[in-house]
Amino acid sequence: MTDGKRVDEFRKEREALNDIVLKNADLVMKRFWNLDTQAYAPGALPRKTKELLGLVASLVLRCDDCVTYHLIQCKAEGLSTEELTEALGVGLIVGGSITIPHIRRAFKTWEELKGAD
Amino acid sequence: MTDGKRVDEFRKEREALNDIVLKNADLVMKRFWNLDTQAYAPGALPRKTKELLGLVASLVLRCDDCVTYHLIQCKAEGLSTEELTEALGVGLIVGGSITIPHIRRAFKTWEELKGAD
Amino acid sequence: MTDGKRVDEFRKEREALNDIVLKNADLVMKRFWNLDTQAYAPGALPRKTKELLGLVASLVLRCDDCVTYHLIQCKAEGLSTEELTEALGVGLIVGGSITIPHIRRAFKTWEELKGAD
Amino acid sequence: MTDGKRVDEFRKEREALNDIVLKNADLVMKRFWNLDTQAYAPGALPRKTKELLGLVASLVLRCDDCVTYHLIQCKAEGLSTEELTEALGVGLIVGGSITIPHIRRAFKTWEELKGAD
Amino acid sequence: MTDGKRVDEFRKEREALNDIVLKNADLVMKRFWNLDTQAYAPGALPRKTKELLGLVASLVLRCDDCVTYHLIQCKAEGLSTEELTEALGVGLIVGGSITIPHIRRAFKTWEELKGAD
Amino acid sequence: MTDGKRVDEFRKEREALNDIVLKNADLVMKRFWNLDTQAYAPGALPRKTKELLGLVASLVLRCDDCVTYHLIQCKAEGLSTEELTEALGVGLIVGGSITIPHIRRAFKTWEELKGAD
Repeated sequence: MTDGKRVDEFRKEREALNDIVLKNADLVMKRFWNLDTQAYAPGALPRKTKELLGLVASLVLRCDDCVTYHLIQCKAEGLSTEELTEALGVGLIVGGSITIPHIRRAFKTWEELKGAD
Repeated sequence: MTDGKRVDEFRKEREALNDIVLKNADLVMKRFWNLDTQAYAPGALPRKTKELLGLVASLVLRCDDCVTYHLIQCKAEGLSTEELTEALGVGLIVGGSITIPHIRRAFKTWEELKGAD
Repeated sequence: MTDGKRVDEFRKEREALNDIVLKNADLVMKRFWNLDTQAYAPGALPRKTKELLGLVASLVLRCDDCVTYHLIQCKAEGLSTEELTEALGVGLIVGGSITIPHIRRAFKTWEELKGAD
Repeated sequence: MTDGKRVDEFRKEREALNDIVLKNADLVMKRFWNLDTQAYAPGALPRKTKELLGLVASLVLRCDDCVTYHLIQCKAEGLSTEELTEALGVGLIVGGSITIPHIRRAFKTWEELKGAD
Repeated sequence: MTDGKRVDEFRKEREALNDIVLKNADLVMKRFWNLDTQAYAPGALPRKTKELLGLVASLVLRCDDCVTYHLIQCKAEGLSTEELTEALGVGLIVGGSITIPHIRRAFKTWEELKGAD
Repeated sequence: MTDGKRVDEFRKEREALNDIVLKNADLVMKRFWNLDTQAYAPGALPRKTKELLGLVASLVLRCDDCVTYHLIQCKAEGLSTEELTEALGVGLIVGGSITIPHIRRAFKTWEELKGAD
């Protein structure tokens, strides 16, 4: 996570690994993968809000890959930096200083995503 | 958590215990308590979204007291049952079946909160 | 968790709460509930092994309700006390002393389940 | 956790459940129980510091029973309320607001332990 | 974790670091290390089942190093890919989508272990 | 984490990322950052004890960056290797074998910090 290419690399590695998963997955696993997509589809809540929920849940559970994934989605949904900061702030308060290394990396990823505009 | 009074009891116990905390708290603890309030104040994101973030973070970290607290706030912000279900659904997908007992209790609390309308 | 009726009470409360969930659940939630059943169906691994996996996963994530549920299933699958002790022992080593209060309650539930034979 | 007897009740329940565990425990489990005692014996660090470490570890992992246990030990080691508040404060900062319900109950237990002086 | 050598590298790094640990370890730490081995010895449950329990516990607690270690042991015990997929599926359902990055890496490691046959 | 420079690299990366955070931080986030410093200031408990508490809390929550940070602080406070081993031992017992990969890396960092004397 040390250079400007990391979102691209993340995407490529994720795709390559997903291929390996799907080659080995059974029905339970495949259905979960589908559900994981459906849960973020717009409904009573807009997709942007759902992606924010996924982002903050990933932050407090401290999964960098999941945070990166939801940041990409949030960027695509037009989230502003001010909104992002406030959402990460809720995660920081709920989850404590143990989330700080992940917040640092989240902002680095965000800067990269903004730079790609 | 077995009768119609539980939200009221939760509120009373929470207040009584907060009194004990504040009697013993030092500056670090008091400042954290204040920050915890400020993090949910409306800003770039509306309060309703922030309370939803707090709710789903509490769900995936599996804290019933925190879930109950944010449900009370979400109800006050006018959250609909459909919105609640979708938000809990994101928490369920991110956090897995280990969140189910908390989702069960969350809906029970929600029914009680709706019944108080 | 203080008397001989607790498994029965657990079952009744679980059913009552599941009714509330299903009344409010959307498609994502209902599908997850189904997947949660399918994941433990016998396949390459027998159901007993899968229930043991669910039990130990629940123990290290420290969810008493989930532990109780899987103990009931393990009893139905004919798990012996020696097998249970060894499985909880793996959870204890992986998850540490923080799992001990849950192991205490697990054995109490197990004694009750054996007493019902 | 609603009356002045709870530390006593905690002790009694803990002993009764430990009896059930030891009846079922194998060598791995018994050895872990012994190690759990040895880890807090005075050495390069005094017992009081080790109990504080156990307390804060239990707080951030959010186990009320473990917190109560270490509070009893800390009281026996002569911990002051000011020291306790600062230690819980470190746990609060590291672990976030999700620890607050446990901090509330910890102070309630502490008040009871002090009342027993 | 980006090339075909990673299991070998994992083994070497693990050994080198274990040497550093053992140089500094006290009796508590050494005894825990021994217990960690004993917990997976065959008994009422076969070693394969115990390694599977360790694998799924490691997955839901989301420790890649621990997952890799138990995958190596599971391979040595003759676990089939179908059995592995079902076991990881239980972990996925219990622990949710937050386990997915670890499942991706687990299958990649598994492919490498199979390729070494 | 594979060469003798890693503490230096950790410090540089941490500073660079902190700059990005502070550029984006709002008042809640900045205040939390300040509180995080205040919580470890000497008071009723000496700074060394508070850093040890932060270390063990970070270990059981399994955050390598946080562990490295507190090891640097503990070294500056004059912690001995024997004290470190006992503190990590409490974390190991509370948190289980899932902490072992972090303990391995902690000792490696510690060796490096000692080598810099």
